[in-house]
Formats: sequence, structure tokens, C-alpha cells
Amino acid sequence: MTDASHDPADAAAPSRAGRPSRRSVIGWGGAGLVLGAGAAGGTAVTLMGGSEPAGEAGAAVPFHGEHQAGIATAVPDRLHFAAFDVTTRDRAALVQLLKDWTAAAARMTQGHAVGDGAFGGLPEAPPDDTGEALGLKPSRLTLTVGFGPSLFAAGRFGLERRRPGALVELPKFPGDNLDAARSGGDLCIQACADDPQVAVHAIRNLARIGFGKVAVRWSQLGFGKTSSTTPDAQTPRNLFGFKDGTSNISGTDRPTLERHVWVPPADGPDWMTKGSYLVARRIRMHIETWDRTSLQEQEDVIGRDKGEGAPAAKAREHDAPFLKAMLPTAHVRLSHPDSNAGARMLRRGYSFTDGTDGLGRLDAGLFFLAYQRDVRDAFIPVQRNLARNDALNEYIQHVGSAVFAVPPGVLDQDDWWGRGLFSS
Amino acid sequence: MTDASHDPADAAAPSRAGRPSRRSVIGWGGAGLVLGAGAAGGTAVTLMGGSEPAGEAGAAVPFHGEHQAGIATAVPDRLHFAAFDVTTRDRAALVQLLKDWTAAAARMTQGHAVGDGAFGGLPEAPPDDTGEALGLKPSRLTLTVGFGPSLFAAGRFGLERRRPGALVELPKFPGDNLDAARSGGDLCIQACADDPQVAVHAIRNLARIGFGKVAVRWSQLGFGKTSSTTPDAQTPRNLFGFKDGTSNISGTDRPTLERHVWVPPADGPDWMTKGSYLVARRIRMHIETWDRTSLQEQEDVIGRDKGEGAPAAKAREHDAPFLKAMLPTAHVRLSHPDSNAGARMLRRGYSFTDGTDGLGRLDAGLFFLAYQRDVRDAFIPVQRNLARNDALNEYIQHVGSAVFAVPPGVLDQDDWWGRGLFSS
Repeated sequence: MTDASHDPADAAAPSRAGRPSRRSVIGWGGAGLVLGAGAAGGTAVTLMGGSEPAGEAGAAVPFHGEHQAGIATAVPDRLHFAAFDVTTRDRAALVQLLKDWTAAAARMTQGHAVGDGAFGGLPEAPPDDTGEALGLKPSRLTLTVGFGPSLFAAGRFGLERRRPGALVELPKFPGDNLDAARSGGDLCIQACADDPQVAVHAIRNLARIGFGKVAVRWSQLGFGKTSSTTPDAQTPRNLFGFKDGTSNISGTDRPTLERHVWVPPADGPDWMTKGSYLVARRIRMHIETWDRTSLQEQEDVIGRDKGEGAPAAKAREHDAPFLKAMLPTAHVRLSHPDSNAGARMLRRGYSFTDGTDGLGRLDAGLFFLAYQRDVRDAFIPVQRNLARNDALNEYIQHVGSAVFAVPPGVLDQDDWWGRGLFSS
Repeated sequence: MTDASHDPADAAAPSRAGRPSRRSVIGWGGAGLVLGAGAAGGTAVTLMGGSEPAGEAGAAVPFHGEHQAGIATAVPDRLHFAAFDVTTRDRAALVQLLKDWTAAAARMTQGHAVGDGAFGGLPEAPPDDTGEALGLKPSRLTLTVGFGPSLFAAGRFGLERRRPGALVELPKFPGDNLDAARSGGDLCIQACADDPQVAVHAIRNLARIGFGKVAVRWSQLGFGKTSSTTPDAQTPRNLFGFKDGTSNISGTDRPTLERHVWVPPADGPDWMTKGSYLVARRIRMHIETWDRTSLQEQEDVIGRDKGEGAPAAKAREHDAPFLKAMLPTAHVRLSHPDSNAGARMLRRGYSFTDGTDGLGRLDAGLFFLAYQRDVRDAFIPVQRNLARNDALNEYIQHVGSAVFAVPPGVLDQDDWWGRGLFSS
């Protein structure tokens, strides 16, 4: 460790006119860390991949662990998600990039600047870090990497025989209106944080490190989580005004995580054991139409009441749903595990608003993110069911889509994102 | 007032299966209010238009006052800004909309739902409020309205003779690359809040109330403030990694506000007295190019050092700049009042990241918002100077532009946005 935590007393003593000493500016936000010195150096391994309780806003989430953080981990309120095309054809360059990304991610998630910091190195060189997160707290930043099907294509990086059987391209579903410019990607990075500037800073610095090797294919900012993996004081609401994620998988429910989220050794390949599969869908919500729909219709379409969030004919949000009390086309009924052979996913979606659509309406919706053990048993059959029958389809449209194999966690500072995939 | 604050004990007693009692769900976030009952009803008038110290995050900012809140008011971290085209040709309909907007804004800024709330009214009718902010705190929400030059065009609403001389269209500046779809607008609403879901909810509900009378022309989400009107612990940083707004006008510096921000009676017309003029510019920042520039070059371009934010040849951020120590093309030198006949503006800008630009780069930048007494003495000459000479022009491009007359505050619950303009 060459860096030290920010020391205000130190910062008050610039070493030359207008330029603070190196020690004073490197390692921002150290005061907010909840970890011992060992964790910042990357030696602490958690068993649950960061799925411990939410912790204080602003704190650091451990980067190293058997699972990647950002899946079972408590969901902070802000997201920046980016999909990348790999532009280099050089496998060694891609491997080096993944190593560099891992090192940068380990630093940024713990509240440190990249490399020698925003003002390290020589004045004649570009700074190692872009600097806009200087002084901000770690903000529970998690960075989670995934590999898209296209990365495994023949003739690219020699990975075609290492592609998991579960990493299938999603089929076209009825009603899909996918924009290729918002779909797919060789790699993805999910950045979740309490402070959007911290999430954006992380994606931007990873993109910068990847200059000449990767290009940002698409990215999505999310401003409000729509699901939770922890028992929050209240279930978040989506842009239809309904509580969302009431029966989401809890980040501490280990048996359910093992059964529905983490890839077990038996599923293969070995490099995906303890990993997961991520489906990302950009779902445009026609909020103007929805807002002109009666309360009764809204509640019938969803299958829960709007205020309390209780299932139809029940009184409380967390009462077990009685599916037959709902319309056959109700969203909650159709997406319930009992209607889908027990299929469950861990959802980490976010609301988005991206300006206007050119027709005087807000371009708003849900950026759906779901982790699962196997998309063939989870997202694909559930979405087939929803795409055919869901009453909500009148008010939504899927406009972007991607699927990624999310490898297991980085165990220590000698490990790196994708080591299992690219080694041996 | 027909609504009451949220009472958890009450919410635990649904009045029928799955539907909480009306009293239990109307008036969200009441627990977070710092105001007495009178303020929620709209009778409290503050002298400074909400420019008192920041207050607790989550609290309510008074809506009524001689100036609109959201100008001198402490700047929260999140923004949703929307420009509207007025689609009705009926002056009475526009006036009614402004009255309805005012009533809704008075409620939402105090943490209440619109109208009878998300679940008021009959199940057969659409809810009065869209519901996604239910349970969230007021979050220091401010809503600020402005009137664009096009609203005053001959043949529209009979306002051509009431147009202020200061409400000029901005000239084309060298380097401008303006997108008409992100420029202009008959009306604007600036929503600032600690929680983006609260800001988005407010804009969305105002758009909904305006259905058939207005259409959203463009909107912009901002995720990190780049200026402050209060003495924060630290000056915020923009996406170039530099502290921004070090010498911004303070929201409590009344003499400077009177001289540079608020319109005095002598400037006319009467309906603009105690109002201000807002310039909004969407400034794309070529962060990838910037990030490959040396630290020395970055600091020379700006005229301050990156770590401390001190002016060239000075040691501390708040040291008075010595302009001659900077390059003649340095941004800070060129934008300084001493280089612009004393011109000053109150800045409330935000960083943005709106996905990608189709060329593998993040579409990121600064959404510049500046309030001033007269754009002809402030933004226009300063921007002429910058557009011609600023070394920063290599790294930025202005891609959206709008100007609005921002009327004075709403005094009480009988007053409304634009009363002065549309009356007499």
C-alpha cells in the first residue's frame, strides 16, 4: 500500500504553490471505511460475497469474496451500468485489461483513487484518476463484471469451447422492440452506489483504463432502486407507483441463493462455479397512459393494491398471495413461482428517466436486472409466460436486452476478474 | 387541508381488504417536515425565498416567499429539469394550468401528494398522484417555473407587449452546436431535491396535470451538483475533476443577490420584480480527451490546481485569484468578473451522464444553470468572451440552450405562478 487515508491536517500544507502534497490527496474518503487496514489491501475474504446487512450509507463493501459483490449485497439507490465491445483482437491485451480493471475496482470500491491517485505521477502525464470522486465517501460502491455470449464467438479469443451451456442468447419474445444500440455487449460492469457520482466515476475510469481495448457500447443510469435484498423500512416503489420486489430473494437467505442464484459445481463449467447469470432488460414504461388509467384497473393489472401493496383479497403486503383471487392476466400472478415451476430470480432493478421520446413524453421506465442460476430455467420461461399473457404489456415495452455470465468473486489481490475463464 | 400526516398506527388498519384507509395514505412524509402546520397550508412567507441555510437532508423548503425557491436556496445534489411546449391555444386554459401547477407544487414541495393523494378519489378514476414518491421525505424539493421568449410571441396568448426587454434570445456563439430538440421551450420547471425519485415524481406529475395543454419538449436529469450557494464542507467537483463554483454567489449574501440576481423594480416590467433570468446550457464534455491530457495542461487550461483548487500561484482554494499568473486563455481568468466588467451569475449547474454517443464514449457533461438580473450584462458578454478565447473549448461543446424569465415567488395560497404576467 503506497497510499494513505486523507488527512485534513496534512492537506492544509501544500508542498508547493497550489499543489497539495501527494500524501494529502491520495486515498479519498478513507475516513468512511468500516474495514481494517487488511481489507483495503485486499486480503479480507467474506463468505457471503458482501451479503451482510446494509451497513451505513457511505461505508465500503468488501471487494474480495467467493461471490462478486453487487449481487446478494444490499442494494444502494443509484446505478451506472455499462456494456462494452472489446475492440482489441489480442487475447493478452484483454487479459491485461481484466487484471487492470480488477486492481482499479479493488481500490475504488474501498474509497481509493485509481493508481497513484488524481494527482500522482508527473505533471507531464495524465493523472491516474479523473478526480471527480475525490473527497466523496466509498458510498457502498460495488463493481460487478459479466461476460456476454459474443465474447465466446469462434475466432476471437479462443473461448468458444469454454462457453457455458447456460449462456444462451435470449429468444425473441412477443412484443419485444429491441434497439440493437441498447442491447448485447462483450463485457458489462454494474456499478451500484449510494452516490451516483461515485458510480459514474467508477465506470468512467474503467472505460478510460480500457481505452484502445474496449469501447462503451451502451450505458444506463438508474436513479431509484425498485428491488431490495435486505429488509428495508419500506419496499421501494417503481414508476407505476407500486411497491416492487416485495417477495425478492433476500441477500442473507443462503439456501435460496444456493438454489436459485449461485451456479453450483454440478452445473459447470468450473470457471462459473459460485458465479451467476445476469439478464438486463431496458423496459420502457408508458407512464402517461398508465397515469390515465383508473386505480381499480391499475390494481387489477398488477394483482396487488397500490397503497399497502397487499396481494388481491389480502390485507398486508407480506401476506402470501392467493393467486386465484387475481385476474388470470395479473402481473403478480403470472410472474409468481407457482405459475412458473418454482422459478425465482434475484432482482436488482432501477428506475430510469432519460429525457424525452420526441413525442412530448418522458422516456422513463425500469432497467430490469435479475441474477439467476440458469436463464433457461428462470428468466426465459417466466418472460415467455409474461410476454404472452401479462395485462401489463399494454403499458410497457422491452426496448433493450442483454445476458451475461457473471463469474465468481475475486478471492484476493493475486486473483482477477476472469482468471478462471482465461487460465488453463 | 383535508390531508393528515402519515400515521403508521393508522396504516395498520386497512379499511377494506387490501386497501388502506384514506387517512392512512394521504400526505406522505409528514414526519420529515420541519415546518409548523401553517406552512403546509401555504401561509408562511419567508423573506429570502428559501435562502436560509441548507437544513437537514429530507426536510421541506418553504414554497411561498417573495422570491421563488430553487434560486438562492441551498443546492441539493439531484436535478430534474423539464422544458415544455404549450400546446393549447387557449389563454384561459394556460392560466388554469399555471394555477393547478402552483397548487400541486405547493403540496409536493411540502411532502404531500398531489390532490387527494395516490389513492384518493374513486377507484373508477385515475389516482390524483402517481404514487412513486409515497413514503419518501420532502427531500428539500424546490420547484421553480420560468417563461421562455416563445411564450410571448405575437398571436399566441396576448403577451407580446408584456415581454421583458431583458428576455432576449441568446445569440449564436462561436463553437455552438445546438440541438433544437434540446433547446428552447415555452415554459420550464426546475426540480431540485436530495432524492432523484422525488424530483422526477414532481416533474412527471406536473406533466400529467398539463396533459392536453403542454408537452415535454426536453428534459435533463442531473446527478451531481457542480456549484453551491452555501458554505459546504467541500466545493463540489465537476466531471473534469476540478472543484467548481468556488466563488459562486452565496444564497445568504443579500447585497450581491440584489445587485446581480434579483430583478429590481427599476428594470421592469413590474411582473418581473424580484424575479430573475435563467440561462440553461447543455455542455457536452469530451471527458475521454480530457482524461488523456497531462495534469499540467489541465491545470493551465483551468487556471487552478486540481487538488486544492487554488488559483494559479496561490496556495489555498479561497485565496483571491491573481489573474495575470494564469494563461490569457485560462477558463478562470476569462470568466472572472474582472475580465467581464464585473458581471456575476448565481450558478446551480449539475453533472449529467446520458448513456453513450454512439462512438463508444459516454455522453457526459455539465448542465449549466445560471440565474442573473439581466442576461445582456451577464451570460451573454461572459460567454462571448469564453467562446472566443477559452482554452477549455477544446474539451467542451455547447449542445443545448434555453433562456427563461423566472417570475418572483408565490406569496400565499391565493397567489399563483404567473399571476403578475397574466393579470391586469
